[in-house]
Amino acid sequence: MPKVADQYLSVDPWLIVEEGYHPDRSRVSEAIFSSANEYMGVRGYFDEGYSGDRHVGSYVNGVYEARKIGRSYKGISTSGNYMVNTVDWLHTRISAGGEVLDLHRSKFSDFRRSLDMRTGLVSRSFIWHVKGRGRMRVAFERFVSMQDAKLGGQRVTLESVDFKGSVDLVFALDFDTFHEASDRKNFWDVLRREAGPGGAALLGRTQNTSKLLYSGFRLTGGGRHRAFNEGKKAGVSVALTLAPGGREAFEKMVVNEARFSKGAAEAAAWAQGSKLLKSLAAEGFDAAMARHRTYWDRLWNTLDCTIEGDPENQQGLRYCIFQLHQTYHGADPLANIGAKGLTGEFYNGHTFWDTEAYCLNFYLFNNPAAAKNLLLYRHHHLPQAIARAREIDCEGACFPFATINGEEDCGLWWIANTEIHVGLAVFYAIWHYTKITGDKEFLYKQGAELLVQLSRFYASRGQYGQKSGKFGLYGVMGPDEFKLMVNHNCYMNLLMKKTFETTAATLDEMARKAPAALRALARKTGLKPGEKADWLGKARDTLVLQDKSSGVFEQNEGFFDMPHKELKSIPAKDFPLYHSWSYDRLYRYDMHKQPDVLLFLFFFNRSFSPAVKKRNYDYYAPRCIHESSLSPAIHSILASEIGYHAEAYDFAKYASRLDLDNYNRNTREGLHTTSLSAAWMNLVYGFGGMRSDGERLSFEPCIPRKWKSYSYRVLVRESVLEVRVDKREVQLRTVQGPPVEVDVYGRRRRLDAEGTRVALPAARRA
Amino acid sequence: MPKVADQYLSVDPWLIVEEGYHPDRSRVSEAIFSSANEYMGVRGYFDEGYSGDRHVGSYVNGVYEARKIGRSYKGISTSGNYMVNTVDWLHTRISAGGEVLDLHRSKFSDFRRSLDMRTGLVSRSFIWHVKGRGRMRVAFERFVSMQDAKLGGQRVTLESVDFKGSVDLVFALDFDTFHEASDRKNFWDVLRREAGPGGAALLGRTQNTSKLLYSGFRLTGGGRHRAFNEGKKAGVSVALTLAPGGREAFEKMVVNEARFSKGAAEAAAWAQGSKLLKSLAAEGFDAAMARHRTYWDRLWNTLDCTIEGDPENQQGLRYCIFQLHQTYHGADPLANIGAKGLTGEFYNGHTFWDTEAYCLNFYLFNNPAAAKNLLLYRHHHLPQAIARAREIDCEGACFPFATINGEEDCGLWWIANTEIHVGLAVFYAIWHYTKITGDKEFLYKQGAELLVQLSRFYASRGQYGQKSGKFGLYGVMGPDEFKLMVNHNCYMNLLMKKTFETTAATLDEMARKAPAALRALARKTGLKPGEKADWLGKARDTLVLQDKSSGVFEQNEGFFDMPHKELKSIPAKDFPLYHSWSYDRLYRYDMHKQPDVLLFLFFFNRSFSPAVKKRNYDYYAPRCIHESSLSPAIHSILASEIGYHAEAYDFAKYASRLDLDNYNRNTREGLHTTSLSAAWMNLVYGFGGMRSDGERLSFEPCIPRKWKSYSYRVLVRESVLEVRVDKREVQLRTVQGPPVEVDVYGRRRRLDAEGTRVALPAARRA
Repeated sequence: MPKVADQYLSVDPWLIVEEGYHPDRSRVSEAIFSSANEYMGVRGYFDEGYSGDRHVGSYVNGVYEARKIGRSYKGISTSGNYMVNTVDWLHTRISAGGEVLDLHRSKFSDFRRSLDMRTGLVSRSFIWHVKGRGRMRVAFERFVSMQDAKLGGQRVTLESVDFKGSVDLVFALDFDTFHEASDRKNFWDVLRREAGPGGAALLGRTQNTSKLLYSGFRLTGGGRHRAFNEGKKAGVSVALTLAPGGREAFEKMVVNEARFSKGAAEAAAWAQGSKLLKSLAAEGFDAAMARHRTYWDRLWNTLDCTIEGDPENQQGLRYCIFQLHQTYHGADPLANIGAKGLTGEFYNGHTFWDTEAYCLNFYLFNNPAAAKNLLLYRHHHLPQAIARAREIDCEGACFPFATINGEEDCGLWWIANTEIHVGLAVFYAIWHYTKITGDKEFLYKQGAELLVQLSRFYASRGQYGQKSGKFGLYGVMGPDEFKLMVNHNCYMNLLMKKTFETTAATLDEMARKAPAALRALARKTGLKPGEKADWLGKARDTLVLQDKSSGVFEQNEGFFDMPHKELKSIPAKDFPLYHSWSYDRLYRYDMHKQPDVLLFLFFFNRSFSPAVKKRNYDYYAPRCIHESSLSPAIHSILASEIGYHAEAYDFAKYASRLDLDNYNRNTREGLHTTSLSAAWMNLVYGFGGMRSDGERLSFEPCIPRKWKSYSYRVLVRESVLEVRVDKREVQLRTVQGPPVEVDVYGRRRRLDAEGTRVALPAARRA
Repeated sequence: MPKVADQYLSVDPWLIVEEGYHPDRSRVSEAIFSSANEYMGVRGYFDEGYSGDRHVGSYVNGVYEARKIGRSYKGISTSGNYMVNTVDWLHTRISAGGEVLDLHRSKFSDFRRSLDMRTGLVSRSFIWHVKGRGRMRVAFERFVSMQDAKLGGQRVTLESVDFKGSVDLVFALDFDTFHEASDRKNFWDVLRREAGPGGAALLGRTQNTSKLLYSGFRLTGGGRHRAFNEGKKAGVSVALTLAPGGREAFEKMVVNEARFSKGAAEAAAWAQGSKLLKSLAAEGFDAAMARHRTYWDRLWNTLDCTIEGDPENQQGLRYCIFQLHQTYHGADPLANIGAKGLTGEFYNGHTFWDTEAYCLNFYLFNNPAAAKNLLLYRHHHLPQAIARAREIDCEGACFPFATINGEEDCGLWWIANTEIHVGLAVFYAIWHYTKITGDKEFLYKQGAELLVQLSRFYASRGQYGQKSGKFGLYGVMGPDEFKLMVNHNCYMNLLMKKTFETTAATLDEMARKAPAALRALARKTGLKPGEKADWLGKARDTLVLQDKSSGVFEQNEGFFDMPHKELKSIPAKDFPLYHSWSYDRLYRYDMHKQPDVLLFLFFFNRSFSPAVKKRNYDYYAPRCIHESSLSPAIHSILASEIGYHAEAYDFAKYASRLDLDNYNRNTREGLHTTSLSAAWMNLVYGFGGMRSDGERLSFEPCIPRKWKSYSYRVLVRESVLEVRVDKREVQLRTVQGPPVEVDVYGRRRRLDAEGTRVALPAARRA
């Protein structure tokens, strides 16, 4: 992993601070200082306009455009949806004494930008040296509310140091934003505009998908106000004069109200938006911020993680957790998490299997309602998944590789039609979620239906080898995207087998405990008498390739004989390889892009012996190229378990500061949102040694050499558990809710508020 | 093979005749009645215009346009050249008594269209019932000269039956043709136009590739002539009156002169075209036709094939041979054979491995100079192939999957970058060509250079398995295009091994017999000391998968375990499967698209025992889906050899009338030109039992049940051999040149003009 940090932000436990402006990192900072609340998100771009390189990105979860793709061959998706840039609701323009404020051209000093992770407030201020007129301090604050998803607030403060003269401001809403990946096209028609002295509103509609977005604001502040609207913009201009010591503050409270369904009534959207604006915008910036802040207070008070002795990792870890919460917190079961969250257009806002395989573990122990909503999102999109399965000549439900609205949006057939393991991650998430939460209501209703349709899909997509008589998936791509059209991918076959078994066991359990629900399920899914037996037969026959003598699983048929490449022999400049190697060459070695076998050794950790895990790690780790930001965490977790402490720490460091230090040099495109859970996983599953796939939660913590101590908390049913680890011992207790039984270093313990202390075994000290 | 004949043409040994017009088969007939002479080709479209469905296709070999393709990943080709429609040089318009002749609207009778395979003359005539003015016979004749490649002739004859009135004609050249596959765009700029009473000329230039094409004509015939030019057209209009019994004939002699290199001088092209026109067009239609005819006379007199008792196959066979000769006869080593020859734009005029794997066998025994030119074509394009190898991180030369000018034009990376067996077919062709012709001059000069660059390529593209220690090609697609990214494709590994061995043997031979040529070769190719040993080592280590007990070769690693599909269980309506099956599904069965293992059992037939061939045929034949028009012939040949006579006949029937009976329902797109050699191979290698890969030519003929007798001739060095087979015996003799030693049913015989007779073994009678 020849990856190097690019550190330019100050290290602080709770703040992300940029001291002095770094124009060459303009887009990186825009991504890092993003604000979001699941419903909407906005990059940390300059409110006041900027003629340098920047990307004014403002997104609403579920507002997408569609590109029509001509049909080539059957089964190759013709759907091409992508999250589209929406309204620039922070649009501000300032000129003073004839000079337009533009940090690309204006003279300024004392630039400071910060994100306070305790509150989600993004602030920016600087002293503007107005040509020939003196200096004034300009400050911007913004937040999007975690309490009222449709509400955003902006405050602009001007304070004259020694400036004297007239100042003109514009506060507006602007739908004339463009989509970077589509030749910078704009996709909005504005259907209605209204502006008055107190604010303005617009109703925008996307051109192909007819999504409606009402955006309105109320402005308070001094000066002479004049409303305007023109083109795709509406707002209020303000004229005032400022003298030394003078100060003017403007509060712009914004409501964005979207209508997602085609044919939604424009009048209703306008009326609802206006109503919301009236009620929400009235309270003003500080009051709305205070209500918003209660969300974060409650959260950090309950579920904070701490690291003593490693301020960089402490900051990085909190940043990842903060971003995960603001990107998704279970407000809407029709929303999901795009690869870049709401921080950029790259990856088209698509949801991948990252959600279930990575993010969901975080939410499960921090916000189980959000975890459930992620599963309900898949359940809601079952009809599209069923249609997709038909389209590729299969039964049941095939969840798309990349999607916004449940349709398959990945047009690269050799990925979309072979990397069909999304449903397996959905199975894993259902299994994990119901195990941890005990949510039988979900299981018997949506979970079982998902399982039945998943089992159907894999039973029809799988095939029997004519010589071996073994069942498995042919012509697939596993998690390792450097293997195309392989047979019997071990991860996929193993998870398929477990899908069959779990489905059958769930049906059996329902027969005993919820016969009415089972009847409803059978009616709804048309469950046929022989299906369960078919799945169990196929589970029994499924081939899971493993070398008997070493215990090493074979990633796919033929993998052990794949030509070997010493990764150390590849020059650092060749990375990422898909930029510098012929595309086909990537597929012809035993090196793999990201964990494949190791991933299921993490998912079903308790099912494998320490020796098997060590042998597999020893075989696969030196062959892994980590060209996925999801990759190092799994290695870190297993390395910790095995006792490769130094390696574990190196892998972990990368994850927690992936975006803050722009390790992959592409943070400008947006945060690696779905990878942020890796930082939390590194702490909790890695050093923290938690395992959640066994009969009980278990803990076998270790501590990195550099750290003095660390702590983390997890929410399990009604209880919050706290684990504190220092160089000598591990303290475990409940900080909320009833006692919980867990295993600590293999011994069963009952945790209560009193807590328990266990000495840290020597082998667990790095 | 659920394929059904659509027969609407009359059966005749030498003529292809359409009696009565079949408008629903307009495009099929256009393809079937195509004229060509390697340099240029023209579909059999109606000279006089037609408002119904048609495709005015006129092509010059090597005149192509280019589409720029954005770079995605390294190694994915960005070149997109395609043969472009050129000038409609047969452009004619006729009106009489105010009515425009248009067979889509006009009333007519006695329609007859014919192609005389003895002469290559395409004729069409009908009686036009001019509204209210009586009838006139209209006749069109055309040919493109096999003697003067740039010359084409058209004759239009009007003969009044009882028509009386004025007739207006237009004879023109029209560059306003469109390319069907590119939204019917036109790609020509006309740089110069000239028209006078005796004719007209135009100079066209393609818009992206700057190919120049001069087209000029001389017109003779009665009436008042008036020259015109406008837009992309130039010509002569003629006004005359016709009375019952009156007759007018017009001869339009055309020269098309192309300049292929970028930046070619327009003035020079115009001058050369004009000069050629002056000399060639002067002689008139009949004289030019007579000279042209000498080519066909000589050809049919020397190398005809006959079938007694099966007029349909006789006609089909001659048609295939005729088309092969007129598509390519070795006039230009920079020309090759597109998948549809010069009969349509489908497949973009691209040359594939069909040339070496299929067509070249035909030319080798019918026109060895043409066979040599096909190899020189590859030699000429070595620089592009070397560049392509670099682009995909390899050494040596990688011949493109689809090409016109030597660049890789296949943009489907999963085919272009994996189906890298074109070079292996080039090796096979070099090996076969030099074996049969003994052309050491070619071998030591161009052949050896090709072999060195090919061996280099495969030595660098091949890899060693880390467990097996065996060498082979990983991540490839073999001839069977229903297997993607497989390892150790048996056909490819075997041919790669032979490439290494043949290259080494050639270098050894040159060291003994042509040391100066070897030194020149070493200089030119930078041959390094260890290379030969490297190739021999890799040849020794190459894995050729074969089941030891049965002798069945395994098409690729894992093939024997691929899920089985009973082909009989697939409904006929599902074919072709790539239309009705999900694209990925095609790749997940043991069924294959076309012969893969069986192909090398044909290429190197004498190296394998009868038992091995039978066992492999028995295994693979029932798994072959024949979704390539190249496929059935190989099966027919091996079935004949094994003694599956009925099967052999069924496969052969399809090949000889593939286009005449439009078996694949896509002849309208153009002829399956590169598949036409299959008909000849069925006769000569199949029933005729010839084998050319052993030490001597060998013959083990059989005869289908339906046939009374058949004969064929092959040109081998200076001799023409004739083989005649009837129900009782086989007669072999030379009809030209010195005696030749061959094997007949395993016994060595010396053939001379006297000939030899051998009784037909009972097992060789169907």
